[in-house]
Amino acid sequence: MTALHETTYHSLIAGEPVTGTGGAVRAIDPAAGVETGPEFTLLGEGQLQEATAQAAEAFASYRALTPQQRAEFLTTAAERIEARGAEIVAVAMTETGLPEARLQGELARTVNQLRLFAKVSAAGDHHGVRLEPALPDRTPLPRPDLRQRRIPLGPVGVFGASNFPLAFSVAGGDTASALAAGCPVVFKAHNAHPGTGQLVGQAVSEAVRAHDLHPGVFSLVYGRGREVGQQLVADPHIRAVGFTGSRSGGTSLMATAAARPEPIPVYAEMSSVNPIFVLDSAVTEDRIEALAEGFVTSLNGSAGQLCTAPGLLFVPRGEAADAFVARVAEKVQAAVGVTMLTPSICASRHEGEQRLTGLTAVEPVGRGQDGGTENAPAPAVYTTDVTSYLAEPELSEEIFGAVCLVVRYDSAEDLNSVVEGLEGQLTATLHFDESDAADLELAQQLLTGLELRVGRILVGGWPTGVDVGDAMVHGGPFPATSDGRSTSVGTAAIERFLRPIVYQNLPAGLRPEPVQDENPWQLDRRVEGRTVLAEGGNR
Amino acid sequence: MTALHETTYHSLIAGEPVTGTGGAVRAIDPAAGVETGPEFTLLGEGQLQEATAQAAEAFASYRALTPQQRAEFLTTAAERIEARGAEIVAVAMTETGLPEARLQGELARTVNQLRLFAKVSAAGDHHGVRLEPALPDRTPLPRPDLRQRRIPLGPVGVFGASNFPLAFSVAGGDTASALAAGCPVVFKAHNAHPGTGQLVGQAVSEAVRAHDLHPGVFSLVYGRGREVGQQLVADPHIRAVGFTGSRSGGTSLMATAAARPEPIPVYAEMSSVNPIFVLDSAVTEDRIEALAEGFVTSLNGSAGQLCTAPGLLFVPRGEAADAFVARVAEKVQAAVGVTMLTPSICASRHEGEQRLTGLTAVEPVGRGQDGGTENAPAPAVYTTDVTSYLAEPELSEEIFGAVCLVVRYDSAEDLNSVVEGLEGQLTATLHFDESDAADLELAQQLLTGLELRVGRILVGGWPTGVDVGDAMVHGGPFPATSDGRSTSVGTAAIERFLRPIVYQNLPAGLRPEPVQDENPWQLDRRVEGRTVLAEGGNR
Repeated sequence: MTALHETTYHSLIAGEPVTGTGGAVRAIDPAAGVETGPEFTLLGEGQLQEATAQAAEAFASYRALTPQQRAEFLTTAAERIEARGAEIVAVAMTETGLPEARLQGELARTVNQLRLFAKVSAAGDHHGVRLEPALPDRTPLPRPDLRQRRIPLGPVGVFGASNFPLAFSVAGGDTASALAAGCPVVFKAHNAHPGTGQLVGQAVSEAVRAHDLHPGVFSLVYGRGREVGQQLVADPHIRAVGFTGSRSGGTSLMATAAARPEPIPVYAEMSSVNPIFVLDSAVTEDRIEALAEGFVTSLNGSAGQLCTAPGLLFVPRGEAADAFVARVAEKVQAAVGVTMLTPSICASRHEGEQRLTGLTAVEPVGRGQDGGTENAPAPAVYTTDVTSYLAEPELSEEIFGAVCLVVRYDSAEDLNSVVEGLEGQLTATLHFDESDAADLELAQQLLTGLELRVGRILVGGWPTGVDVGDAMVHGGPFPATSDGRSTSVGTAAIERFLRPIVYQNLPAGLRPEPVQDENPWQLDRRVEGRTVLAEGGNR
Repeated sequence: MTALHETTYHSLIAGEPVTGTGGAVRAIDPAAGVETGPEFTLLGEGQLQEATAQAAEAFASYRALTPQQRAEFLTTAAERIEARGAEIVAVAMTETGLPEARLQGELARTVNQLRLFAKVSAAGDHHGVRLEPALPDRTPLPRPDLRQRRIPLGPVGVFGASNFPLAFSVAGGDTASALAAGCPVVFKAHNAHPGTGQLVGQAVSEAVRAHDLHPGVFSLVYGRGREVGQQLVADPHIRAVGFTGSRSGGTSLMATAAARPEPIPVYAEMSSVNPIFVLDSAVTEDRIEALAEGFVTSLNGSAGQLCTAPGLLFVPRGEAADAFVARVAEKVQAAVGVTMLTPSICASRHEGEQRLTGLTAVEPVGRGQDGGTENAPAPAVYTTDVTSYLAEPELSEEIFGAVCLVVRYDSAEDLNSVVEGLEGQLTATLHFDESDAADLELAQQLLTGLELRVGRILVGGWPTGVDVGDAMVHGGPFPATSDGRSTSVGTAAIERFLRPIVYQNLPAGLRPEPVQDENPWQLDRRVEGRTVLAEGGNR
């Protein structure tokens, strides 16, 4: 790890290195299965409060920035990360085992995401302004002057994901959307990629300094996973939480947040098996090759360590479908395992696979080859019948890794029962031929049921790969997330960190810019219940 | 109660009377302190599920209504309530002790609110549509076709408030906003006004029948308060909860919702002392008469039983302010107590007042006369100094009723400390003369602090009286509500019962109306991140 020259690194609290008194960790190179890189000291008793207190102190000045100032800060953060791009990717490769091309792509996504939120901040739709001018002559009662806007919640605690060391980590989506909303961030570094986190954290801290912001706007803290994590969620300065990780991790943070004297929202993105429904018309002779290829690529990409990786594939009975499954078997057998993120994630995957194969109703379809490194298990596909699936809840549990269960079904009723019993999911995908009237009708039925259980519904294609834009929803009902009312990817994520407030009869001299008559920030606003577009605008 | 001719009434489950097996209650006429009117049977073991299962069954067809159909249903509900207006007001007068004029006003507010949500439903902004057309040539990756909209959460459990037997009860704001969003409602009737609830419930059920909707769209259930209430929140068919009531009631529902296998959002509006800050420039000779008059009217209106009633009045030291407090004392002494809603609310008020007067730092300012009925305690004002206030948390607790504490302060620093220590509030009010530069600056400071703790900030006027429109926020940080990210009054309340979903590459034939290219519902929509106004529109 050439980019990290010191032997020891520390938390960056309000821009300053703070030596942790709670021991230290080193990264593990998962391809070699050995420790690598420098030490990172972990926060001990009472040290986290330095970060949260600084964040609370920074909040007043940070939320008072103009949209343009906040946009410039986010843009600088993107630039500083880009400037260290080569170092960041090199360290991330060693710490996560992810290939260079994937990390380059993720780096681009991360900086583009910061720039997207800079645009969102500048455009200012998230201020959510609603104006109702006074109606002194209204009967039976006059109406006062009412001006609503949204303000940021306050300091946000963010937890990084192991599987996206850049795009869902230190300067990832949660951090970008919270900062764009006007909330300082205290980021709990993921101990699986501490060096990557350090480099990105330094870049963000530089951006804070470059714009002369209160240094408490951003802190990066290292600590023993659940210990410091729970402290962060319980800390009275923290007003909301962003988390991406396991169901057990997420639900334990939800419980801590709900038990606070003053409960706070937790946005946890947790677990999803992302069912894929293959209808009869999708397994015709001319389609099965591409379908099998697409499926195995989606399954084995990033070693299946994606929130949206396909974990359940529903395939009809019949010869054509048998041919499709046979093609899947061939392709899986030819596929080679990819290094997983950590030895413990790999061990969990093995346990999950063993639990699955221990069930009598489960048969193997195909298993690829182990990769040439440590922690690179072969991708594997198993199969069961729909009756067993419906009877055995364990068959619908997520196995984080390149393991998929093919469920063979007999009828449309089977699929409706499957949908009916589905837990909340990030995604669901339908494969069928649009020109097949029967399948189009079945797809319509399934769609209606899936809407109530899923955040994103695809027709064709594969759920892996989440576009970061204005219309994306990366969310879904529990247990896919803690709160299906929001998204953690895309511009709408900014809404998670805001709340509305109304000013009644506020004199002109006291009105904040978003609600001033002159509309100095050129916002689109609602006036008397109708949207009025800004004439100029910052787009 | 001439309008209720039967000797016994029952829950209205999916439009049908269902005899409860859990005993019965009668209303209490608080002015007389005796039971009155017919019996209402209470649901027993296992009966609630009939209502929630019917609501779940109704959801599919109800959410599929067009905006216009839903608007027509809400309008009919308003008409049916209006048609029984005289009966409803007569029964409510007996059950709540509230005067006729107040109830007439509340009836008007209730039906106007239903009509407002009919308009909201027809305009359709709450569909929150965001479109990003496919970009097949984008590099490095093509963009799929993405179409986001919001869909209703599912059946909502709603709890009525004792203090608004119409506008926050059976067909009140929570019911109207949930129904407008497309969610069936199971309403837990308040046992303090069971007959009022029955009449309004019959009217809503008639509207359901008139539009040939699935009868499960609306149920009204009677039960023992916390028992059936907890069952409702724990019921797996219920997807969100609206509640207006006490802090202990609200927090216990929050705990139940968080402990469900699948947690759900609870929107509880709970407690608030609604501080009023009187600055020096507001207590000049020419202003104190109107200020004292306005204050005592706001304090004693509806016996102080309003969520936004003033509970804390911060008044400076000095002769001018002394004169103001003396004027308040006179006016309170001349004021006459009003019948409270129930004997137990009256008893709680007495207890609260006794706790307050038991504290050594508290002195009386003035006490009015008891009303001529049972349960009509005199309005009362007490005073303390700011040092005691800051030292004694009990002094900032809500007493539900016409009791206010005047806190005398010495300096701007005192007020800043007060704001700093404030719990979440529905409202805060500033009184000052805008032409006084020093007070304008102080107001600016206080405003900045209050924004983080309050949902609505007033300059001048009194917090009682909440305008129902597009810009209102009736909400605020915990403990004012369970969730400061929303409002329970005004059109934005509809957002509480929706969540986003995105369709990726959905063929034209499967697209729901809100996301179709043709925009058949004429919605304002976001396209590529910018709002595009509908050409026609339903406004």
